[in-house]
Amino acid sequence: MKKAVKEKIILGIDPGTNITGYGIISAGNSGPELITLGVIELKRFHDHFLKIKHIFERTIGLIDEYHPDELAIESPFYGKNVQSMLKLGRAQGAAIAAALSRSVPVFEYAPRKIKMSITGRGAASKEQVACMLMNILKFRETEIILDATDGLAAALCHYYQNYYIGNIAPKTKEYKSWKDFIKQNPGRVK
Amino acid sequence: MKKAVKEKIILGIDPGTNITGYGIISAGNSGPELITLGVIELKRFHDHFLKIKHIFERTIGLIDEYHPDELAIESPFYGKNVQSMLKLGRAQGAAIAAALSRSVPVFEYAPRKIKMSITGRGAASKEQVACMLMNILKFRETEIILDATDGLAAALCHYYQNYYIGNIAPKTKEYKSWKDFIKQNPGRVK
Repeated sequence: MKKAVKEKIILGIDPGTNITGYGIISAGNSGPELITLGVIELKRFHDHFLKIKHIFERTIGLIDEYHPDELAIESPFYGKNVQSMLKLGRAQGAAIAAALSRSVPVFEYAPRKIKMSITGRGAASKEQVACMLMNILKFRETEIILDATDGLAAALCHYYQNYYIGNIAPKTKEYKSWKDFIKQNPGRVK
Repeated sequence: MKKAVKEKIILGIDPGTNITGYGIISAGNSGPELITLGVIELKRFHDHFLKIKHIFERTIGLIDEYHPDELAIESPFYGKNVQSMLKLGRAQGAAIAAALSRSVPVFEYAPRKIKMSITGRGAASKEQVACMLMNILKFRETEIILDATDGLAAALCHYYQNYYIGNIAPKTKEYKSWKDFIKQNPGRVK
């Protein structure tokens, strides 16, 4: 008999002031399942504050539509310069405030931790992470995927850190390494 | 005849993850007037996300109580390191999101600009800024003042940048320099 797991909805988000990627998964008895993924386009807003406003409002919108139990956020701890980190912090602050104002607890993960959790390699490329996500959550590549996957990866990382139980292991368990995955999926890696 | 000035309520805020200072002024025909000033104490929250939540909720609370027309925020553009700038950015993001979610437009000012605007000197000390604020807005020193004055200074800086009209000049206009102010107010500077 499989262990019972209370189903959780996890919203993963990767805030940025040009593009904010998000992904939503459910984590229940049958393992993680994709609910949706997408991007919040912010390039068209020339005003920095309008970007912040939009991130806040869209995050509230996602919460009110999908009712996530938890928010997982990708958060780099080191960046190019203090100026860009301040702007990134503001984008994160807007998303975090949105979640907490709806009483959704927030968990943050460093990019390296997320990549390690999904692919087994902390230095994995965006494409490698996307490829693993498609395999684990069974969806196909679309145009938006590379921008949206960082948010989705944060959600899945949170799942692995908190709700992963051996007997509901996803297929990735079968691959011992990234090379092994490529070997078994020759058409999946460009 | 004095020029008519539409009265504006300005909320000034200086977000920080230990203490967030704020000040609220009205800007009408009789020049800037203090409505209130205070601090949001955050040291007692050990969890970083609880701090963000508290900044967001208290900013919403101030907006709903005082109905400011505009938010002025102190924002350093350079900091000690990327890590502290990310945290500062999150605190700012929460305050900015709170204002924008209530349709209050946001304006940011560098600390140097604020000090210059209040004291005539970009390198003025916190105490010098506080002293000038007490003189212009006619209030006495209290224990919380030094922590609260950066927020109040941002509000007054925003007033000077946008609503200052020669014939309603505050008393500071009489002082040609900081030295001149000290000379005329020997008991005010420690």
